[in-house]
Amino acid sequence: MRKIDSVCIVGAGAIGSLFAGHLGALTPTGVLTRRSSHARELNEHGLRVSGKSDLHVRVRASTDPAELGEPDLVILATKATAVEESAATLRGHFPGAAVLLVQNGLGCEEVVRRFGDWPLISGVTFMSGVRHSDTHVEYELDTSTWMGPWAEHGADYGFVCAVAELINASGLKAEAYEDLLPHQWSKLIFNSAVNSISAMADLPHVRSFAARDGIADLGHLVFAMMDEGRRIAAARGVALADDPWEMNVRAVSRGQTGNEEYGHVTSMLDDVRHRRLTEVDWITGAIVREAAKAGVAAPYHETLYRLVKALESGWQRPRAPAH
Amino acid sequence: MRKIDSVCIVGAGAIGSLFAGHLGALTPTGVLTRRSSHARELNEHGLRVSGKSDLHVRVRASTDPAELGEPDLVILATKATAVEESAATLRGHFPGAAVLLVQNGLGCEEVVRRFGDWPLISGVTFMSGVRHSDTHVEYELDTSTWMGPWAEHGADYGFVCAVAELINASGLKAEAYEDLLPHQWSKLIFNSAVNSISAMADLPHVRSFAARDGIADLGHLVFAMMDEGRRIAAARGVALADDPWEMNVRAVSRGQTGNEEYGHVTSMLDDVRHRRLTEVDWITGAIVREAAKAGVAAPYHETLYRLVKALESGWQRPRAPAH
Repeated sequence: MRKIDSVCIVGAGAIGSLFAGHLGALTPTGVLTRRSSHARELNEHGLRVSGKSDLHVRVRASTDPAELGEPDLVILATKATAVEESAATLRGHFPGAAVLLVQNGLGCEEVVRRFGDWPLISGVTFMSGVRHSDTHVEYELDTSTWMGPWAEHGADYGFVCAVAELINASGLKAEAYEDLLPHQWSKLIFNSAVNSISAMADLPHVRSFAARDGIADLGHLVFAMMDEGRRIAAARGVALADDPWEMNVRAVSRGQTGNEEYGHVTSMLDDVRHRRLTEVDWITGAIVREAAKAGVAAPYHETLYRLVKALESGWQRPRAPAH
Repeated sequence: MRKIDSVCIVGAGAIGSLFAGHLGALTPTGVLTRRSSHARELNEHGLRVSGKSDLHVRVRASTDPAELGEPDLVILATKATAVEESAATLRGHFPGAAVLLVQNGLGCEEVVRRFGDWPLISGVTFMSGVRHSDTHVEYELDTSTWMGPWAEHGADYGFVCAVAELINASGLKAEAYEDLLPHQWSKLIFNSAVNSISAMADLPHVRSFAARDGIADLGHLVFAMMDEGRRIAAARGVALADDPWEMNVRAVSRGQTGNEEYGHVTSMLDDVRHRRLTEVDWITGAIVREAAKAGVAAPYHETLYRLVKALESGWQRPRAPAH
């Protein structure tokens, strides 16, 4: 099993900064940023992690992979919408590295593969952070990152275990699986329904996502969409590790304190509220494509996929003043 | 066939004002308003119609039906969301009148029936107006109002024909049908898909509603929803008079001039943009209920119905400031 002597984090948003801030304390860590001002800040001031961890580490940051040595592991931590641009930047670099992907949804491996033959590790992360500045991230939700060799051209499982071990040693949480698909799909189906419905209904992930009393109740839609997802997974030969509906019920039950209700603002809702293109092509759209491959009907996923795309399309339109 | 010696218009929004402003030139016309200031304005200044007509008529307005005589015909012209309140105001009044309903959707007849045994005329109106003030409405789209005896407790067809004749004589357009259902359902299915999708996608009724090339194209959803509507209508014994999909294609083709695209802001989208409760319970919700009666699956209508209801529910929630 190969040792991991240095790593490179691509993208220093909240997730990338959490990886860099923790791994940087254990091993030489490079950070590939999009903005040169961001790299400069990191080189001058290091990277600080507050919240669930308390760390301040030196990192080597640059906008040019040629300045970041020869890492054994690359963690590609940009949003799905930016993977193509990031992978293009990596083309021809880091021939000795395996690349771990932690984007939401499905399909980023194929994109990266077009730019190099690095062995790939598929990942799903549940941790979350809040980026306070270019050099300060707050570690919020200390949940795990799951990973496994990509089925088509993956790193070997022993190396994946070494990656998980390194991440665990750094104070973050990771689990390695020989077959990630049952885990990845559980999260995918959960994410697809909760994110797209939340984005369209302009509603955080609140109790009504689990309500199934009246005919108009939203929980019926969430349930139907997750049930459809399960059928599509089965048709693709994937048995889910977790029941997405139970994940949903657990998640909305957590936020209750007396009459006040906390609802998580999903990442897709946050994107919509800021009129940023969402990751819907990689999440709900990915399930639509998988359904088509399997020849399974997907009315719920198709509907939410098309609605989110239509909503995005409207941001380009001039809007008449309200009357 | 009974003569129509006087009419009463209930509700003086755009549609009610168009009826009052035209019929008031032919026959004594009362207007029942919600606000007393509105009634006062109408009594003092009369009602002016501009646009496709040029009229200025005297009307007798009040918030109390007892002050509006004994009309032979009542036109209930409020939005579906206000029908219950309006019908409650009419309870015990106008025993000799038939009531014409022109709300969007299905189900208002049953609501009115709970408050009195007036013979009812079901109606669907395609005309539109812009209300510039309490005493001035602009006649915009000079399309027809269709009407027919309500199947359960309707006015007789001869009287419905007399109503249509009177409306036509006034400068508006009307058509009487012995069986309105094939016409009503065509408009209902068209409205349900176009309104709810437009409201959710924050998109006027534009060309993309008829686009069916790529997998993400919105036209697929519009088509699937209308096709589902047709199946539900058939299961309820209704053969559509018009093809809702062709109505959709015609409507979005009209608005093209060079590179500029006009898209009609549907009434449900307008409600959503102003955070007013929509008529979704009477439109998409009505189809969901009809599907349940017929034992037919309605995934598309259920999905859009639940999304619009969820969107409305969020307007009551305190919203965290954007970050």
